[in-house]
Amino acid sequence: MSSTDAVDGGPGGGVDASLEPAVVDLLGVLAYAELTAFDRLAEDARLAPTLAGRAALARMAAAEMGHHQRVCDRLAELGRDPAAAMAPFTGPLDAFHDGTRAGTWLEGLVKAYVGDGLARDFYREVAAFLPEPDRGLVLEVLADTGHADFAVREVRAAIAEDPRLSGRLALWARRLVGEALTQSQAVIADRDDLADLLISGTGDLNGVADLLQRLMDAHSERMRSLGLNG
Amino acid sequence: MSSTDAVDGGPGGGVDASLEPAVVDLLGVLAYAELTAFDRLAEDARLAPTLAGRAALARMAAAEMGHHQRVCDRLAELGRDPAAAMAPFTGPLDAFHDGTRAGTWLEGLVKAYVGDGLARDFYREVAAFLPEPDRGLVLEVLADTGHADFAVREVRAAIAEDPRLSGRLALWARRLVGEALTQSQAVIADRDDLADLLISGTGDLNGVADLLQRLMDAHSERMRSLGLNG
Repeated sequence: MSSTDAVDGGPGGGVDASLEPAVVDLLGVLAYAELTAFDRLAEDARLAPTLAGRAALARMAAAEMGHHQRVCDRLAELGRDPAAAMAPFTGPLDAFHDGTRAGTWLEGLVKAYVGDGLARDFYREVAAFLPEPDRGLVLEVLADTGHADFAVREVRAAIAEDPRLSGRLALWARRLVGEALTQSQAVIADRDDLADLLISGTGDLNGVADLLQRLMDAHSERMRSLGLNG
Repeated sequence: MSSTDAVDGGPGGGVDASLEPAVVDLLGVLAYAELTAFDRLAEDARLAPTLAGRAALARMAAAEMGHHQRVCDRLAELGRDPAAAMAPFTGPLDAFHDGTRAGTWLEGLVKAYVGDGLARDFYREVAAFLPEPDRGLVLEVLADTGHADFAVREVRAAIAEDPRLSGRLALWARRLVGEALTQSQAVIADRDDLADLLISGTGDLNGVADLLQRLMDAHSERMRSLGLNG
């Protein structure tokens, strides 16, 4: 690519033209992921056994909207309509959430910790292939909103009280991972620019395999920290 | 009351001891009102006909949690547990929301604009009787989160398209006001300190009547701005 293809790439600027579709896709899927995370946390907040727990989850939901807003602002800066950038991803993400609707407070916490953890790790890997300022922005909005510690504490306490919960929640976590894989494959198959970025960024298929291994290692670590067998 | 009853009343300080129960009540009801406003906006966001409308409502919900947090921080500063301060008000506020669950996107917008507007005006009147820093804090967290303009725009556009909506939504607004009056009477009857603050602040029963008149005038103004007959 010649340098004339590139627009200003400094902070607050545009994006190298060849990378722009993939950047817009990543920002679009992230913006919608934050919006659905908001939705789900707000819904799960109502399942909270205490007023303090309900307020804690509602605060995390609000933090997701702060991240959503920053991603939308960046899309607008790139001259894109945030709703249009999100649109290709509403189907797969809604399908994931509809297919894994938490029935209990604990299922909601496991879903948020295990499911969001996996998604965050994946977005972080892709962000590493992006130029600044988008790499920095994505890493920043992926910062945990305090949910992880909260979920680990609540789930471990519940299992300590009733050890039989452990097997049931481990099964639930496996279902989440299966559904997440199904939906991410659908996204990658549909979005050539994202798939190209992933392949060219990792170098080759070995690179993709290494990336998947890293995701799975981090997932197992999260399962252990919850006290669940992955 | 002698000056020895008073604790440090400066910004970030305590509250005059005789007023403290009423201040804690007002902060408690406000904290829970913000939490339920969050809940309701999050729920209504899912009824939005567009992704942009859904994101707009979710952002307003997030702003309510920012206000909720500030009120809880102040309660903690006064040595009170926010959950305990909210507890006396969960019953009446939940009853209000359960009794007026919006069935459509437009009903949700009218409820948020007309119902929250009335509640905000009332809290603002009570706040005027409080010492600083709590007066300033309450007035600040009552600031509109952008919902008013948004609701007015959406409702007016819908009525312009289908004028028959006007009568139906006016009826809905009257139901909201009736239920709001029922529940506020229940709160005032149950919380002597709040009732005393209201009476001593307004001066006498004529003062209370004037206050109610101001609330009703502002309500009629909101109905007119929506294009509804109050």
